[in-house]
Amino acid sequence: MKVVSTVAAMQRLALQWKAQGKTVALVPTLGYLHAGHVSLVERARKAVGKKGIVVVSIYVNPTQFAAGEDLSRYPRDLPRDKALCSKAGVDLVFVPTDSEMYPGKAEGSYSTYVSEVNLSKPMEGNSRPGHFRGVATIVAKLLNIVSPDIAVFGAKDFQQAAIIQRMVKDLNFPVKILVAPTVREADGLAMSSRNKYLQGHLRTQALSLWQAIQAAKGTVKAATQPVDAARLKDYLRKFIEQQPDAKVDYVEFFDADTLQPTPTIGRGTQMALAVFIGNTRLIDNATL
Amino acid sequence: MKVVSTVAAMQRLALQWKAQGKTVALVPTLGYLHAGHVSLVERARKAVGKKGIVVVSIYVNPTQFAAGEDLSRYPRDLPRDKALCSKAGVDLVFVPTDSEMYPGKAEGSYSTYVSEVNLSKPMEGNSRPGHFRGVATIVAKLLNIVSPDIAVFGAKDFQQAAIIQRMVKDLNFPVKILVAPTVREADGLAMSSRNKYLQGHLRTQALSLWQAIQAAKGTVKAATQPVDAARLKDYLRKFIEQQPDAKVDYVEFFDADTLQPTPTIGRGTQMALAVFIGNTRLIDNATL
Repeated sequence: MKVVSTVAAMQRLALQWKAQGKTVALVPTLGYLHAGHVSLVERARKAVGKKGIVVVSIYVNPTQFAAGEDLSRYPRDLPRDKALCSKAGVDLVFVPTDSEMYPGKAEGSYSTYVSEVNLSKPMEGNSRPGHFRGVATIVAKLLNIVSPDIAVFGAKDFQQAAIIQRMVKDLNFPVKILVAPTVREADGLAMSSRNKYLQGHLRTQALSLWQAIQAAKGTVKAATQPVDAARLKDYLRKFIEQQPDAKVDYVEFFDADTLQPTPTIGRGTQMALAVFIGNTRLIDNATL
Repeated sequence: MKVVSTVAAMQRLALQWKAQGKTVALVPTLGYLHAGHVSLVERARKAVGKKGIVVVSIYVNPTQFAAGEDLSRYPRDLPRDKALCSKAGVDLVFVPTDSEMYPGKAEGSYSTYVSEVNLSKPMEGNSRPGHFRGVATIVAKLLNIVSPDIAVFGAKDFQQAAIIQRMVKDLNFPVKILVAPTVREADGLAMSSRNKYLQGHLRTQALSLWQAIQAAKGTVKAATQPVDAARLKDYLRKFIEQQPDAKVDYVEFFDADTLQPTPTIGRGTQMALAVFIGNTRLIDNATL
């Protein structure tokens, strides 16, 4: 497994692969890899085949963290990540530094951003100002650096996946976006690097996101008429906040394509939620 | 000479060229081509060689026109443009429609933009709100559609060239940007598709931009100490507005790299100006 840390070396390799007719898949990550990431790598391998190239990028992108968020304490363990990638059959790990990705940013000579201006407004966009501008910008950069034929994202970040698909379509990036299903712990908790923060009783309380999704699914399944979104939101908020350290940021029901909130809920309505468990902000989502 | 009008067909060809190891140069234009554009084509050919591919895109990009500008009346003559390109040895003309470039824009389902946020602020950015966001967005799209190794822009749009170079660097587009010198009419007027608007005495008055540049050059050449920018601006404004139909939008002296205004002027200072001649807004620039 190759490890590349400069943009120039990565772009040279990408050019060689193109000339050799290799199919390339990129799995962009923030590192601190878990079974969810491994499933993205497996999806990438399935897409490009044995002769194709699977690239994992590991970069804690500062521009997607809002002020006051956990950028400085975001978990990092590069040796472990490399071992996991190697074991998962990754061909190349791209691990750039901040000065490689945003040269001159401190001095104001980095100044270009990609913004999606509709789908980015609600939910995560509302709670995390600038987050999706940072995500769209870093993904655009990675697409230009790795020139993949395919890029794989996780369904846990539902809104992110929608925005990246929109960006790729709008800006005509010559890449196919695949979205792979959320991988969960045995008890239902969605895999996340931030689960590392959940010690002791917080880990138990974190299950309330999954339980809320199950409750919503059950409600829709049992309903004989459309379910009122406002009432179900209110109910789920109270349900989750029965946990002493849980604070709901949002519970939202919306159309999966437009991300527009729906006043009533039925089969196919998309649900997403963000909850603080202690200081740790968790997200999850499901199609009802 | 090939003529391609869909994004999908253009991207298929780009992929084939990559696989064949062809070097590709793109000359993005708004059409209504003149000798300035032909010089960009010549620069592109020189860069890629006889075996390389020169692509000219012709597209009046709506997102770079501010409200109330001349989008609807911008001059168009596709048959003439094609003939000029063919004669200039262009290999392919890419002529997309609005619905091809911004599908769903009227219904709000186009929503991604590229913004350069520093160099875009003064001069054209100040006078034409949203202009450079439109320029950066369409250039990003064209780079993703044509995947050129080289893209050629004209020095007449000095600020635009600076912003595109910054965008390409910041977002890591794998392309080399070349900036080719401004081509002028025999009397010094910079070539522009908008010169078509200049009838009769307006054409004569339009020469005042070039004359102001010559005056500034002469002042710097003659000066024994640094020239005060504010005073020279004031002088040039009055000089230009001696023409009855001339109204100065801005005259600016600045650092060629940062575009920061300079309080004093010397050799190497960059000058740019925008002047309305009747209803026609003209720009020009020079290194002093």
